[in-house]
Order: sequence, then structure tokens, then C-alpha cells
Amino acid sequence: MRFEEALADRSSWSTAGRCPIEQTMKVVGSRNAMLIMREAFYGTTRYEDFMNRVGMSSATAASNLKALTAADLLERRPYQEEGERVRQEYVLTDAGSDLMPVIIGLFEWGSKHGQRRSGVESVHVGCGEPAEVEVRCRAGHLLSSEDVELRVRTADRETR
Amino acid sequence: MRFEEALADRSSWSTAGRCPIEQTMKVVGSRNAMLIMREAFYGTTRYEDFMNRVGMSSATAASNLKALTAADLLERRPYQEEGERVRQEYVLTDAGSDLMPVIIGLFEWGSKHGQRRSGVESVHVGCGEPAEVEVRCRAGHLLSSEDVELRVRTADRETR
Repeated sequence: MRFEEALADRSSWSTAGRCPIEQTMKVVGSRNAMLIMREAFYGTTRYEDFMNRVGMSSATAASNLKALTAADLLERRPYQEEGERVRQEYVLTDAGSDLMPVIIGLFEWGSKHGQRRSGVESVHVGCGEPAEVEVRCRAGHLLSSEDVELRVRTADRETR
Repeated sequence: MRFEEALADRSSWSTAGRCPIEQTMKVVGSRNAMLIMREAFYGTTRYEDFMNRVGMSSATAASNLKALTAADLLERRPYQEEGERVRQEYVLTDAGSDLMPVIIGLFEWGSKHGQRRSGVESVHVGCGEPAEVEVRCRAGHLLSSEDVELRVRTADRETR
């Protein structure tokens, strides 16, 4: 990656607390939070299922589901089974769904570099080919690390 | 996301400890580890710079750099400035470089959904358009969450 000229001296600026990566990690930067999001993508909605499938204590499941709901990645939805009281289940919001490339990216990296074979792979329903994460620009060019530049956001340029 | 038939009953199987997402999070599943990787992509190589730019104590920087080196995401390389002793700097390995889509994915999510504007954006050096992460299959089809299926890896199919 490179920097535009205004940012070239890496010691002269900082995004501490405002870095987008840091802000994302604040929300999903733990094993439990990220595996809850995995389960949500897998279609899990119920408290006990999150707890059992991620492998967490009840207290850990509760605090993580609460935090992910507060951060608007999951939303609570009431459901009721016959003869039972109304309970809450947890479903992905639009912001939660937007984590999909990150989840697939983590899956792909772990499949390639993890020490243990998972035995599963993610594929395109339509054609059966493996799903992969790519970095492209909005014009469609495929980007490697060398092709990416960090710059001051255009909208913020005049006000600095 | 969906599951192939053999995996459709989510209660009947588990990848505990072998899930590729879990294995990746084990290595970079903390703010400090991920922000060190961010800095490595930004071109930071020296211990003091990682410490200052991520905002960590010396002990935290040391233990995280050691763990990321042991996990083969960074490698140590000796360097020497005039009149100084030989020191070690840290550079991305191929496995470390493979995290690029995850880093850009976290950046993109935080730029869109983070509570604070970072003031920076990542763009294609060549054409200036914003960098984005996409999920595609190897045949090139653009995938949404609905298009992705988890299945038993072909190579493992006969041995189960």
C-alpha cells in the first residue's frame, strides 16, 4: 500500500480512535463476536443455538449478543412456539450483512493458512466454484496490495 | 448462506477448533494484532513505530510481534544503522500479505458503519476509484450472501 503525498510522512498523522479498521475491530474484534456473526450468516437465530454452536457460556453469549445488537449488527425479533412464552431471536441487520466479505475473507485465509483442515469449503450455489474475496476498485480493476493508496477523503479535503 | 444437504442439520456437525474463521481469529482476532497487520501493510517495519502508531505499550508490542512472527504472518529481518547495533525489523510474509482482503474489508465496513469519520479513504493508485472488497466465485460470478453454500470439501468427501 502507498500513501498520497499529504500522508507520506506516517509519523505526522494518526487516525487513532477513528481508523475504520479499528472501529470495526471494536465491534467484532474477538473470537466470540466474530463466531456469533458467522452463525448469524449460517442462519442461526436463537440464543441457545448461538451458545452451543460457538461454544460459549450462557453469560458470554448474552453479553456478546447484547453488544452486537447495540452496535446494530443484529436485531431482536420476537417469536413464540406453541405453549411457550414469547422469546427473542437475533437476525442480521443490513450493517451485519455488510460484514459478509470479511467473514468470507477470514474463512479463505484460514482455509489456506490454518493449521487444521476444516473439511468444509464455501462455494457458489449456482456453479459450484469456490467463493473467494477480491479487492477491486469501483471501476472494476482487480487490485493487489501495491495498487491501493490511502488518501485524504475528497469530502474532507477542503476543510482540513 | 446455505448448506449442502449433508450439512443441512446445523446441530449434527461442528467445526469447533477447525473452523477456518476461528483459526484466523486465533491469530489476528484482537485489536492490537490486527492494527499491527494494518501498519505492516502501511509499510511500518520497526518495533518502535509499531508501538507508537498502533498505540501499545512496549510489552504489548513485543508479545504481539512475537506471536505474529511465530504464526508466520511477519518475518524478522536484520538491519543496521550507522554506528548502531544490528536490530530486527518486521516485514509481511506471503501468508501475511494474504490478509489484504480482510484488512480492506474491515476498512470498508468501518468507513461505512463506524461512528466516527476517519477522513481517509483507500483508492486504486491507477484510476483513483475507491477500493472495495467483493466476493466472487472462481468462475468470476459476483456473490451475495444468498449465493454462497457451505459444503464438505471435495477432497474429504470419500474419507468421511
